[in-house]
Amino acid sequence: MPPSDSMDLLTIATQAKTSAHHLATLSESARNTALNAIASALTERKEEIVKANEKDCSLAENNISSALYARLKLGESKLQSAIAGVRDVAKLRDPLGSISLKRELDQNLVLERVSCPLGVLGVIFEARPEALIQIASLAIKSGNGVILKGGKEALHTCTVLTEIIQKALQETEVNPYTVQLLTTREEIKALLDLDEYVDLIIPRGSNEFVRYVQENTKIPVLGHADGICHLFIDEFADLQPAVKITVDAKTQYPAACNAIETLLIHEKIASQFLPAIAQALEEKGVKLKGDEATRKIIDCEKAVEDDWRTEYSDLILALKIVDSIEDAIAHINKYGSKHTDGIVTTNLDNAEKFLNEVDSAGVYHNCSTRFADGFRYGFGAEVGISTQKMPPRGPVGLEGLVTYKYKLRGQGQIAADYSGINAKPFTHKDLDFN
Amino acid sequence: MPPSDSMDLLTIATQAKTSAHHLATLSESARNTALNAIASALTERKEEIVKANEKDCSLAENNISSALYARLKLGESKLQSAIAGVRDVAKLRDPLGSISLKRELDQNLVLERVSCPLGVLGVIFEARPEALIQIASLAIKSGNGVILKGGKEALHTCTVLTEIIQKALQETEVNPYTVQLLTTREEIKALLDLDEYVDLIIPRGSNEFVRYVQENTKIPVLGHADGICHLFIDEFADLQPAVKITVDAKTQYPAACNAIETLLIHEKIASQFLPAIAQALEEKGVKLKGDEATRKIIDCEKAVEDDWRTEYSDLILALKIVDSIEDAIAHINKYGSKHTDGIVTTNLDNAEKFLNEVDSAGVYHNCSTRFADGFRYGFGAEVGISTQKMPPRGPVGLEGLVTYKYKLRGQGQIAADYSGINAKPFTHKDLDFN
Repeated sequence: MPPSDSMDLLTIATQAKTSAHHLATLSESARNTALNAIASALTERKEEIVKANEKDCSLAENNISSALYARLKLGESKLQSAIAGVRDVAKLRDPLGSISLKRELDQNLVLERVSCPLGVLGVIFEARPEALIQIASLAIKSGNGVILKGGKEALHTCTVLTEIIQKALQETEVNPYTVQLLTTREEIKALLDLDEYVDLIIPRGSNEFVRYVQENTKIPVLGHADGICHLFIDEFADLQPAVKITVDAKTQYPAACNAIETLLIHEKIASQFLPAIAQALEEKGVKLKGDEATRKIIDCEKAVEDDWRTEYSDLILALKIVDSIEDAIAHINKYGSKHTDGIVTTNLDNAEKFLNEVDSAGVYHNCSTRFADGFRYGFGAEVGISTQKMPPRGPVGLEGLVTYKYKLRGQGQIAADYSGINAKPFTHKDLDFN
Repeated sequence: MPPSDSMDLLTIATQAKTSAHHLATLSESARNTALNAIASALTERKEEIVKANEKDCSLAENNISSALYARLKLGESKLQSAIAGVRDVAKLRDPLGSISLKRELDQNLVLERVSCPLGVLGVIFEARPEALIQIASLAIKSGNGVILKGGKEALHTCTVLTEIIQKALQETEVNPYTVQLLTTREEIKALLDLDEYVDLIIPRGSNEFVRYVQENTKIPVLGHADGICHLFIDEFADLQPAVKITVDAKTQYPAACNAIETLLIHEKIASQFLPAIAQALEEKGVKLKGDEATRKIIDCEKAVEDDWRTEYSDLILALKIVDSIEDAIAHINKYGSKHTDGIVTTNLDNAEKFLNEVDSAGVYHNCSTRFADGFRYGFGAEVGISTQKMPPRGPVGLEGLVTYKYKLRGQGQIAADYSGINAKPFTHKDLDFN
């Protein structure tokens, strides 16, 4: 099999589409067998992978930040857990063939809505090469072909990983062309134009990059550009849990998209709560920026309008005092990114009001926004988090990689018999499908 | 309330968004009361509506086709059934607040996935003014604001309908600004740019128009440009039902998107089947276009490559002989529009193969493609039919106008406790939610 850089993108996309069509016809056990074959092949050729990665690392070392370098590095333990992840994906419940509606339209005319693969995924990720392993596994499990494009720093690692995966697939029922690798940056734009071949684009990277993808393709995009999450400390909040939740939501992993960027505080408890939270956050090294009202109570930098729209992804938190829960909800719906927003309160009416009226994928009561995650939700895997309004919304597991079709099985029925003055009525009887 | 042409679009969109936000908080009974108030107001002012429509009709009479004129005309009986439709929508099951997942992540940390409105719909329809009544009802039922744009021929009718609906809403809990009307063609392009305000665009019109909308907006679009549907007569088909189903699928309503455009015939039965179907279709006035193999058996016009991609929407049918079921499936997946495709066969393995491998929203066995319709599927209403791969796919009912959010209710839980070496495990226990 020639490496992808000698093939044109259209050939790659056609191969992926044809292979995906074949993959969609395979049984769950054939797909799982392929996954386990991949896991074994990766284990067998571990040293080769680590060596290719060392080459990437030494080439990149002087040109990238230490954070990026840490993500690029694929040592044996990271690799081992990525391989374990492949076997875990094989154990997940099959997302295909599940029935979500079964209805008799008339006698011997039965409608079923059945889950099926989307087709071909286009996944663009940054430096972390083990992402390739995870994505390829999720694609095969869900019956989809996948065209991968990794960060340029990870080129050698991604090339050897793809080669191992394709070779492992040769021994299985899954066509090796199901998993394809792009190697040049120019191919990204070309991939985004392939709406006839690619059914879903999953960009993993900086907010700017995700926004670029969203603005440059007609293909549906699974992902979010911003994670501007809020916590609102209601007038009826208990202070101790409020402080604990705030500290966790901001500092447990500040670079995560589900960490909070703005803390809203009800004016009735501001003078009590602010000194306590300021102390707790400053102990964790968080820099505070407050509106005028906040700065009358605690000493901190001034927050301006722009701060309400900023995802710091860092140990910085904007603070704002609001005069009502309505004011808090309005602020979140105006400045938030519809990701995840929480309220801390002992008043259940206020909690329900917040949960109903805040227009975000995740709305939380008395817990940290950091729970917004596919694994924590029990999805077994996370494909991405979507902040768009249409489903799939929020953390998306394997079910975000499938769609459904309607199967209608009849015995010669025609529409004319159900039309006009002597129209036969439909029975529309829902049937059990478990 | 000033008519919309004196307001700028941004004001209209802002009003719709704010009103939709309020509508989303109302109970099912408040929404249904509003629907019934609309039905009563329309009944009361029937004569005014008919008069406005007569004005539209007489202005348009000499400039439009008789088919378009028939769609534009809103006489008393059409109006009465549209009003009955409003009361029917009120009776539909509430699409809001339904729970599709309930899971304990840990003790007293419970996740729920709950359906909620999308926000604001932008609906662009052609001459049929009663569409406005139906769409406004579906929007209110599903908790969404709606910005409507009707065909220019229906301007007077749409204006008086909107005025009546808004006035009726004044007496209810639903804000009248929930339903907005645009009146100029220029506003369509501007509406498509309002991705900050509008959450879903539903275009109803010609294929060209739907394609224009799809290519000129970042807002998700519910609709389909083409309906190139197929029927495949397998080698194991019984001829009589095959003829009956073909005639229905082509002629029962040839302008419908779910009517077939191409008939594929297995070569093994072609010499038997073709003369029979040719006679039956010609009796119904259908013009046939066949490939070379077909023309060796029956006398008809020649079909060229372009015919396989053409939606005739008329009494014309393309015929092609295929040498296997695989060939039929490949033809459909290549030339079809992923709408609805059927197989006629007595061989169940072939039927299942076809249903699994044809990549369309609807895949049918032994029945007419004309069943692809929200009402026939028992959805109570049809918002549109989608041929995209991502859900909602196929005929879309009210549930296509809603999305969901995740509600997480805790008692002070933080992510730090579930991370690191002493991480608490999640229980991930699915709970009953019926």
